[in-house]
Amino acid sequence: VSRELVESALHVHGGRFAGDGVHAVDLETIVAKIRTWENWYPAWAAVGDRYERLARTALEARSRTTAGELFWQASISYHYAQFLFFHNRPLREEGQRKKQDVYNLAAPLLVPAAQRLDLPIDGAKIPGFLRLPAGPGPFPVVVLLGGLESTKEESYHFENMLLKRGVATCAFDGPGQGEMFFQLTLQPDFEKYTSAVIDWIHTRREIDPDGIGILGRSLGGYYAIRSAVFDHRIKACVAWGPLYDMSAWDQMAGLTRLGFQYVSGQQSEAAAKAYLHDAINLRGVAGRLRCALYVLHGAKDDLIPASQIDRLDRDVQGASEKVITVEPEGNHCCHNLYPVVRPRMADWLAQKLTRPAT
Amino acid sequence: VSRELVESALHVHGGRFAGDGVHAVDLETIVAKIRTWENWYPAWAAVGDRYERLARTALEARSRTTAGELFWQASISYHYAQFLFFHNRPLREEGQRKKQDVYNLAAPLLVPAAQRLDLPIDGAKIPGFLRLPAGPGPFPVVVLLGGLESTKEESYHFENMLLKRGVATCAFDGPGQGEMFFQLTLQPDFEKYTSAVIDWIHTRREIDPDGIGILGRSLGGYYAIRSAVFDHRIKACVAWGPLYDMSAWDQMAGLTRLGFQYVSGQQSEAAAKAYLHDAINLRGVAGRLRCALYVLHGAKDDLIPASQIDRLDRDVQGASEKVITVEPEGNHCCHNLYPVVRPRMADWLAQKLTRPAT
Repeated sequence: VSRELVESALHVHGGRFAGDGVHAVDLETIVAKIRTWENWYPAWAAVGDRYERLARTALEARSRTTAGELFWQASISYHYAQFLFFHNRPLREEGQRKKQDVYNLAAPLLVPAAQRLDLPIDGAKIPGFLRLPAGPGPFPVVVLLGGLESTKEESYHFENMLLKRGVATCAFDGPGQGEMFFQLTLQPDFEKYTSAVIDWIHTRREIDPDGIGILGRSLGGYYAIRSAVFDHRIKACVAWGPLYDMSAWDQMAGLTRLGFQYVSGQQSEAAAKAYLHDAINLRGVAGRLRCALYVLHGAKDDLIPASQIDRLDRDVQGASEKVITVEPEGNHCCHNLYPVVRPRMADWLAQKLTRPAT
Repeated sequence: VSRELVESALHVHGGRFAGDGVHAVDLETIVAKIRTWENWYPAWAAVGDRYERLARTALEARSRTTAGELFWQASISYHYAQFLFFHNRPLREEGQRKKQDVYNLAAPLLVPAAQRLDLPIDGAKIPGFLRLPAGPGPFPVVVLLGGLESTKEESYHFENMLLKRGVATCAFDGPGQGEMFFQLTLQPDFEKYTSAVIDWIHTRREIDPDGIGILGRSLGGYYAIRSAVFDHRIKACVAWGPLYDMSAWDQMAGLTRLGFQYVSGQQSEAAAKAYLHDAINLRGVAGRLRCALYVLHGAKDDLIPASQIDRLDRDVQGASEKVITVEPEGNHCCHNLYPVVRPRMADWLAQKLTRPAT
């Protein structure tokens, strides 16, 4: 079973590690070291430790750009150390915190820099990062949402794609995600947190208030649609491998169910199932979407069946534009097709949000 | 034997494909399709064809940045199609030409753009590309040299690293390399071509004439040292996995010997060995190096034994600075350590060539 977990994690997420920026030679080293599921965390964390040391050496040598990239490389390594490691809460939390810590060190050194935000909301704080393209603004912006197991630190390469296309990025962790999990577990009203971030974006003079888009992956695709339904300041929405509801619970992989239970802070699988049935549901919501929508899904998604996309497609009738792409060979989030599908989403957003040159 | 060639190519160059920008999911697809050496070319070329089609579609949709990246991705795929494919001259040449053609389409679309140069010399023309960082110049510049099997199109990601560090790049093909092979086979006086490029660089107002460096990999490391010895406008030289001379000929892999014979246009292996013994030799040359030198080599290099670096180290006594790094676990050019060693070379060059802020 333990070995099956390893194979399953690598297979179900094939392409994801590379697409999110794990170097091929590191992935090879890590996979070679993993025999059982217990090896997963230490194999990834060792690579994180090495990059963190290299980053500190680069910083001492005043190689700031390199230090930033190496701290980020440490961050993504710690991210994947704690990824799916729900059965071991101390290591899971250690990996999560190390990921945040080294990302905070990377942030001011990245090109362009990532500016941290901590927005107070109901006694908690929303952690996030804003990055701006080179040149004079105001810029359009895309709000980036993680899902069950992706967080704000993981979107670095996607951000770079948008930045290269003249679009600012704002990634944050919401309830149940990454850094915010320690304050708040998964909530049914994710849109409240998105709107708080957009309120803040509206105060930034570098940003065009009429050029706000949103992109969420996996469970984050669900959050993105909800956010766009409830906040009409959002002009374009990308749902990247999204969820419609939790009706596929019983067919979900054990690790995925455990993950949902973990992030929603429920004491049993049965309690999690009941809670999520109501908390995660687009029924009666998706039909109210008015902005432009782009959906990308993989027909071979092992986590979220493409039938969820059919339901989404049926519900969304009032969107200003609707593009639904189901890639026949795509796995979860089409990660196995990352070199092709990711720029396509970035281009769609850039084209929807950028004002024509006058 | 045919299968051994495949294993050998993949092993000896482990990490190189990813380091030079081949996507992990593509490498996986390609390797899975290759049974015998004959499959090498078509497996890579099919990926090149696919990227070329996708690039044209992106261009039609006015996604210029994406089109540029996809044309480049096609270029690197065709590059690796013809890589080491010396026994089949028609396919070798087809791959080489396709690589050039799609790179020429990519060039104006890259961010920053690559500006083509064709410098007349003795009835031939040196083909190359200049790329400039964002912002106001004048910028330092690094001249980038390929080796036996690397060409100007392959340095795109290394260029991006330098550009991000505020350094312009100028990559060209010299005698025996890439596009220039069709005009001129390998010559003993590579430095003449480097100097012609530097003459041209001196006419560009965006470039700081006192901030010129050079980097060459593998056989290109040999060319870089020669160029720096003969052209004192070069202030800093990186020899990345360089060759000292051809004394290891008899121990070289068969494919490497065939490659040397091919690019030097010799009719037999014996003739190639005799020609190259004189044409490629740092004896009496390396000792005259005066500028700053950084050498990177892998102790586990299967193509160029580290003993060649010992000889280089002994000869170079008058350089303004000498840093010699032999990585104990590094393979040829330390490609298996690319995420760490490549930024280190870029940083060293940026630090040597950038004037302190006043």
